[in-house]
Amino acid sequence: MATEDLLSEVRDLIAERRDRGIHGLANRLGPSEWADVVPRLDPSEVAVLLEWLPEAEIAELLEELDPAAAAAILRLLSRDEAADLLEAMDPDDATDVMEEFASGEAEQLLIEMEPAEAAEIRELLAYPADTAGGRMTPAFVAVAPDLRADQAIAALRRVAEEAETLYYVYVIDPAERLLGVLSLHNLVLTRPETPVRSLMIADAVRVRADADQETAARLLTDHNLLAVPVVDEADRLLGIITQDDVADVLEEEATEDIERLGGSQPLETPYRLAGVALLVRRRIGWLLFLFVAGLLTSQVLEAFEETLDTVDALTLFLPLIIGIGGNVGSQTVTTLVRAIALGEVQLRDVGWVLGKEMAVGLAVGLIMGLGALLRVGFAQGSAIGIVVGATIVCVTLWSTTVAAVLPLVLRRLRIDPAVVSAPLITTLVDATGLLIYMVIAGLVLEQI
Amino acid sequence: MATEDLLSEVRDLIAERRDRGIHGLANRLGPSEWADVVPRLDPSEVAVLLEWLPEAEIAELLEELDPAAAAAILRLLSRDEAADLLEAMDPDDATDVMEEFASGEAEQLLIEMEPAEAAEIRELLAYPADTAGGRMTPAFVAVAPDLRADQAIAALRRVAEEAETLYYVYVIDPAERLLGVLSLHNLVLTRPETPVRSLMIADAVRVRADADQETAARLLTDHNLLAVPVVDEADRLLGIITQDDVADVLEEEATEDIERLGGSQPLETPYRLAGVALLVRRRIGWLLFLFVAGLLTSQVLEAFEETLDTVDALTLFLPLIIGIGGNVGSQTVTTLVRAIALGEVQLRDVGWVLGKEMAVGLAVGLIMGLGALLRVGFAQGSAIGIVVGATIVCVTLWSTTVAAVLPLVLRRLRIDPAVVSAPLITTLVDATGLLIYMVIAGLVLEQI
Repeated sequence: MATEDLLSEVRDLIAERRDRGIHGLANRLGPSEWADVVPRLDPSEVAVLLEWLPEAEIAELLEELDPAAAAAILRLLSRDEAADLLEAMDPDDATDVMEEFASGEAEQLLIEMEPAEAAEIRELLAYPADTAGGRMTPAFVAVAPDLRADQAIAALRRVAEEAETLYYVYVIDPAERLLGVLSLHNLVLTRPETPVRSLMIADAVRVRADADQETAARLLTDHNLLAVPVVDEADRLLGIITQDDVADVLEEEATEDIERLGGSQPLETPYRLAGVALLVRRRIGWLLFLFVAGLLTSQVLEAFEETLDTVDALTLFLPLIIGIGGNVGSQTVTTLVRAIALGEVQLRDVGWVLGKEMAVGLAVGLIMGLGALLRVGFAQGSAIGIVVGATIVCVTLWSTTVAAVLPLVLRRLRIDPAVVSAPLITTLVDATGLLIYMVIAGLVLEQI
Repeated sequence: MATEDLLSEVRDLIAERRDRGIHGLANRLGPSEWADVVPRLDPSEVAVLLEWLPEAEIAELLEELDPAAAAAILRLLSRDEAADLLEAMDPDDATDVMEEFASGEAEQLLIEMEPAEAAEIRELLAYPADTAGGRMTPAFVAVAPDLRADQAIAALRRVAEEAETLYYVYVIDPAERLLGVLSLHNLVLTRPETPVRSLMIADAVRVRADADQETAARLLTDHNLLAVPVVDEADRLLGIITQDDVADVLEEEATEDIERLGGSQPLETPYRLAGVALLVRRRIGWLLFLFVAGLLTSQVLEAFEETLDTVDALTLFLPLIIGIGGNVGSQTVTTLVRAIALGEVQLRDVGWVLGKEMAVGLAVGLIMGLGALLRVGFAQGSAIGIVVGATIVCVTLWSTTVAAVLPLVLRRLRIDPAVVSAPLITTLVDATGLLIYMVIAGLVLEQI
């Protein structure tokens, strides 16, 4: 793998302290390739590397890294060097890194920085990281509505170095309220004297700074935009969120959903950087809850101890039956939680969702139930075969029903449906599945 | 919710066949808003709507819809009307829709289309849908290297209508080989007589047409590009993949991983459009495999029937113990599969991953084991308490170990690690967990 080769090459160069080799490599590699390699180096290796890379290169590298990894690198440096690098970074990325520091540390870095850059970061720090305001950058281009196209291009030329995107130009009034937006290609392909006002799209899509970052990302995606403007409650333009943030936001949200579905609280940091203590904290809560819920199964079994004692063979299929209930429920809940996250399904759809899932549950239940009837009936006699087979059909149907309804109801209660994890459904169905098993056993075996 | 209100508004207008209202709405809504509403309408309602919307609007709407939903709409129309709409769509989106038709149907539509548009789609159909070639559009702008900047802008002006993005201009030689790329803003901000060759970036990032679509998406994201050029084996420029595809690709891949982790095969179609038969087909394979694996649990219990008969209380905690093993394994496997998908972890990391997961497993195992020792020891006597507590520690440790190693090994074997679903780990740990339980019970109870 290319990254692996690169990693060993960099390691060798660092070990032998071959300056010229590193400079050659620095010219060859882009920031994203460095970003693949650097988190895998030891801190001592990173320290050597930083001495050799030019400052602009390091700033770009820090922008590409996960904020936690970037913060770890800044901690290797003097406060003065760290502040210089933060100044050289895009303000939205610098803010994300700043959030990784304790507030005392962050304040000392801000004091060390140039006042203008520090002020931008202070403003961005006011918004929680997962809101549109927390994602935005103030590096946008804005012009007055009565400029002409050629004047606007001249204005662009002046800020070309600092702006994060030049493809959209925002039009604002003297109170900084957003009037509209125009594309660079509109400016270029029109006559030079055309006023900006007549080129702009007046009812431009915008997002409030306090909106969820996922809302902003979906706006960009749904409308095929390169950037979306972020405004305050008075419609004043505060910043923009650009396309390069969308992939980050969508991946972050998918990662959180996957971790929740697996029964953990989201780590909110790359797995590589998560220590044992953090992993334990994120996992133990649900485990203890599920542990207490799981104790119910022993109470169900205790209540039916007599049945189990009389018919020994019933015990043998306890794990199989609750396992099937868990598997079926896990399939339904993951598919459905994802469909809800993508906006395909809402509470008002509960009718057809339930119908569909119950039909699927019945079908797979009948197939497995028939298999169990034959296999178990052959080994343990037809009565036990009928009990196990019938239980599997009922448990499957019950499990798909719970797994179909619960996420939709939670969504309605404004709880993230991804908290209905596969382990939660499995545990819920464990106790009730045993109850179904014992009741069916009682009914069938009484008859014989 | 806004979509809900919109849906009822559209439904009412259609029911009352109020033409003017629909026209008003058509002016007000963007294609992505239509795309939210249309899949929820009945086919008869869609048919009425299509009569009223202008053709260009319908084509844009079809581009926004999931291909399966777009194909369903085209089936409501005459072949002639469908062909006209496909011509009006971006060729890459039209190709995705075409792939939803049986090859006979698709051929008839292609015959009905204008030869130029049909030829573009035929070319794109040659690439599998999940490759870079299957995602690309041929609607890019390419110029010769000896053009001057102002000539290149004039060339842009001529193709402005058809191109999917105007922000990147590709430079090709007479054999159509990719020489470099330049940004629109480079063209605009330079002197008019500058030759294109001296503006372009020569070693532009590119992707082969047969590469995975996820590779292309990550290239765009990692290098912060608005589009990436797709080339054949001779480096000839075939098309481009634009930013608006990236979000689709990343969401598709995350959805597949989530469905696999839940123990299903990926649906590859929106949940809303997946019928019961499809859902059953995608789920039953793993269920039957897990069912057969689950039968192992009954064999383990059968082998230890004597122990279970002698000490009744052991039966009561069977479901609790295997439930805990499943929960812990599910947490580890989902976190790790996601870290692998994001490229954070590879097989060479197996050492520290295993160390970390085993440490976490031991910590949460000790917490739950201590809880069980107290709770179960109080209710059933200290011997059973010790057995259950010790088993929980061992099962937790074992489960995290299996869940940490298996995805990495599969990745190494070039199997998608997401097939190691939560249900698979749960089932694997069920039988082995019972074995651990019975062995510990034998050891401890013998002593007493």
